[in-house]
Amino acid sequence: MVTSTKTTERRHKLRLELIDAGETILDKQGLNALTARAVASTVGCSVGAIYNVFEDIDGLIIAVNSRTLAKLDQKISSFVPGGSCGLEPEDCLNELAVAYCRFAIEHTNAWSALFEHGERISRQIPDWHMDEHVHLVGHIVKSLRQLQPAISDEESWQLAGLLFSAVHGVVSLGLQGFFFAVPQRKLEAQVALLVRATLAGLRLN
Amino acid sequence: MVTSTKTTERRHKLRLELIDAGETILDKQGLNALTARAVASTVGCSVGAIYNVFEDIDGLIIAVNSRTLAKLDQKISSFVPGGSCGLEPEDCLNELAVAYCRFAIEHTNAWSALFEHGERISRQIPDWHMDEHVHLVGHIVKSLRQLQPAISDEESWQLAGLLFSAVHGVVSLGLQGFFFAVPQRKLEAQVALLVRATLAGLRLN
Repeated sequence: MVTSTKTTERRHKLRLELIDAGETILDKQGLNALTARAVASTVGCSVGAIYNVFEDIDGLIIAVNSRTLAKLDQKISSFVPGGSCGLEPEDCLNELAVAYCRFAIEHTNAWSALFEHGERISRQIPDWHMDEHVHLVGHIVKSLRQLQPAISDEESWQLAGLLFSAVHGVVSLGLQGFFFAVPQRKLEAQVALLVRATLAGLRLN
Repeated sequence: MVTSTKTTERRHKLRLELIDAGETILDKQGLNALTARAVASTVGCSVGAIYNVFEDIDGLIIAVNSRTLAKLDQKISSFVPGGSCGLEPEDCLNELAVAYCRFAIEHTNAWSALFEHGERISRQIPDWHMDEHVHLVGHIVKSLRQLQPAISDEESWQLAGLLFSAVHGVVSLGLQGFFFAVPQRKLEAQVALLVRATLAGLRLN
């Protein structure tokens, strides 16, 4: 079984190299540049070798997106009520939104790929990757439940989706520089204003 | 000068035919399918003939987008305070948002091209086209000014941009079917909830 273990190890090493290369290409040049050819050329392997590790190029992109989600999680996971940030639930939601905004500004290509890829992929996204998204939205849900303990499970996820989508709209139009969107220098303040106003209007503060 | 008039007329006719063709292609197949080759083939002219009428393919796309904005304006322009809808300013804003949502659902490709094209065009967008966008956001501004007469010009446009971007985020993620976004069947109700809550939170109702 020595050979088999060696094969597994080699494949694992190649997998990490391919994800590293994909991450660098995405970061510098955006999702359209993240092709099998570009990744193979960076790593110095054949295009075919990629398909010994990933089912298709979408599999590699999902692996890179998964890293982006992990980085985002690292930036925002302390903003949960009772967590290390020591903030009240409303302030947690505010900080979550501002941190999301900051992450999008700092890692625009990687952040933008999370949505672009979701839009263009035709095959099923694996459950483990869906779970990573659910985990992130779960941070919003935790604060909403603290603000309104009587809220139902369905309502809290629905409201979390609404808040997320609204903040995402402000951030994404702002970063695209769409002319009547919020200008980038005001994004953080405006996102915070939106979250506070919406929570107040919903009487969740 | 008879010949010159004829030339002008012929060019005007071709212009309308090209926009019609572009509109149909965009509507059925989306922005990526709206190429000079596809439009020329539909109209039955040479690709070169397009460039006697439009500076470049972006010029044709802008003309098609301009039609989309006019259609959108037709759907929403009655929702202004004191207008034919007879609604109060807060209800105007609500109806504006719901009408925007409905338009995006009914004309997804055309609506989506307004943003996709803005993102990929590299040359300057002509002022007359920018003015069309400003005109649309102006509908939001009118209601905000009625709700809060003391609001400054800058604040009212800023707030209009924030409201628009938030609603746009909910609509666009919902239509993309991004998994934790608002599901399409709930879009109109959720958009209305967001607008009411935000206005209430900003004490604008």
